[in-house]
Amino acid sequence: MSELRYHPFLNQWVITATHRQDRTFLPPDDFDPLSPTQPGGFPTEIPLSAYDLVVFENKFPSLRSPAPEPAVSGSELYPVKPASGVCEVVSYTSNLKGSFAELPFEQARKLARVWKERYIELSSRSDVEYVYIFENKGKEIGVTLNHPHGQIYAYPFIPPVPATELEQEKSHLDKTVRPLMEDVIRRACESEQSASTIVWENEFFAVFIPFFARYPYETYVAPKIHMASIAQFNERHLDAYAEALQITAKKLDGLFGFSMPYVMATHQKPAVDGFEWTWFHTEFYPVYRTKEKIKYLAGSESGAGAFINDTLPEVSAERLRAVECSLN
Amino acid sequence: MSELRYHPFLNQWVITATHRQDRTFLPPDDFDPLSPTQPGGFPTEIPLSAYDLVVFENKFPSLRSPAPEPAVSGSELYPVKPASGVCEVVSYTSNLKGSFAELPFEQARKLARVWKERYIELSSRSDVEYVYIFENKGKEIGVTLNHPHGQIYAYPFIPPVPATELEQEKSHLDKTVRPLMEDVIRRACESEQSASTIVWENEFFAVFIPFFARYPYETYVAPKIHMASIAQFNERHLDAYAEALQITAKKLDGLFGFSMPYVMATHQKPAVDGFEWTWFHTEFYPVYRTKEKIKYLAGSESGAGAFINDTLPEVSAERLRAVECSLN
Repeated sequence: MSELRYHPFLNQWVITATHRQDRTFLPPDDFDPLSPTQPGGFPTEIPLSAYDLVVFENKFPSLRSPAPEPAVSGSELYPVKPASGVCEVVSYTSNLKGSFAELPFEQARKLARVWKERYIELSSRSDVEYVYIFENKGKEIGVTLNHPHGQIYAYPFIPPVPATELEQEKSHLDKTVRPLMEDVIRRACESEQSASTIVWENEFFAVFIPFFARYPYETYVAPKIHMASIAQFNERHLDAYAEALQITAKKLDGLFGFSMPYVMATHQKPAVDGFEWTWFHTEFYPVYRTKEKIKYLAGSESGAGAFINDTLPEVSAERLRAVECSLN
Repeated sequence: MSELRYHPFLNQWVITATHRQDRTFLPPDDFDPLSPTQPGGFPTEIPLSAYDLVVFENKFPSLRSPAPEPAVSGSELYPVKPASGVCEVVSYTSNLKGSFAELPFEQARKLARVWKERYIELSSRSDVEYVYIFENKGKEIGVTLNHPHGQIYAYPFIPPVPATELEQEKSHLDKTVRPLMEDVIRRACESEQSASTIVWENEFFAVFIPFFARYPYETYVAPKIHMASIAQFNERHLDAYAEALQITAKKLDGLFGFSMPYVMATHQKPAVDGFEWTWFHTEFYPVYRTKEKIKYLAGSESGAGAFINDTLPEVSAERLRAVECSLN
């Protein structure tokens, strides 16, 4: 059973996907479904005896095409749509251990190219309105497989968070004739030292904690010049992006001295006409607010939507800047 | 350090409150800060040797009045405001053990009256735009004190979730001349048995899982006739509301056979002029999706805002209906 149900109070689509209730849940290492299938061994989800980096459709997809017909018929009050789209899993490496941060840089470079290829491919589909590249990392965020991997959701609608960002970017552009992200990056870089929230930068990308961060140590990775999507990245941009992402993940690992669980979310141009003015960026939401304490989304965040950040972005940026790390 | 920072991409205020980082965190039972202060014992937050039910200002408030001046000056790009408002703690009982569900019904009736009194009092303040009554229950949701208690936040703005609901309610009313919640309740009650999502009802209140639920076992408690806020509840409404809430919490406890962690969130008329047409209701977001598994808000929910519900509201409602319980 899988369908989209319209939420009339919140003006958003909810994906109902009951078959996911029984999805694989933290299997023992010997039964890692993202390992290559060994001769004589159990069949994993990858029918190859070895691989470098692989993308395949999620076995328990929230969205798929063709989508099943909705089990209930919609109405004016409750519109219902097929849960069409694509859910892909990106296994970063055939190695069960490690994380995105710990991949050899060479592998992160390949991954950036795979993301570009998948973004272009999925964006070209007529049943897709938004391609969302993301990673859930760590059991604290509910990850059901330890193997280093990310996901790509190709939604048949523009989801609420990017939709709001797009509206706000458009409104800022109309008002100031400047892209919002350009102003945000300038402020992160140009502020006097004590107010700076830049964490790291290379030729093409800035890593910073936004002044308005909702999560402790929330970190943005954005190109310094306008690019709407990864489709516009050339080889040098792809390398610089992979480097900036890995440095960010490594700094987060170094912050409290353990592998930091996070959500990594990439926002870019929707897979529909227009929106060329939007500004590609990746957001990290780390799970911990101190070495021992998790930032929970409790009543103020989930029931009211009002985020409380117990950290000061300027101070968090200073701490992340100070974490030393280098690529593998 | 405490201030409101405007999030230009999401058009919302973020509360920055660094002093909360060191708030009391799961103290041992002997040092319960919500217990009465015993003669010769350590001073709790309640300087009384006994109490029935008590409301006091949070010692680590996200919002307070007068609010400290923001540490940074705002700009056109980044407006900043004082984090004014009120954060109250409602200790439901002097008894450290138990939960809202397990309170004697008499105590729940008193609690409903305290909520009404606090709503009216806080709504009358000129520095408050929205009074939000809620409860975080359970360590899985990040609760830092085990003592049964809830909270009231009086925000200086209308937070994003109720703001969206209000817009949608207004738009539905303008289009259909009927309140949205009236239609939603009618559908929950009138559907043929297999599609019904009503869980329980008394004379004045309906308990149901909305057709468009975002969380597994998400449950709404709403008056059957229009009431914009708890200020309009008479004595019988207050009793019926307390009963409906306790039955809901008890059914959630009975569902998997353990005390269910949840967020309980009440949405009602903002503390500003207008909005008389909004419809008071309380939403429960239970944390578990099965007996062993938590529903996490991961990449699709937190980074895109697209909720995936692994349960079917019609089936969940049937299960909750079947849970037997009675008031203490």
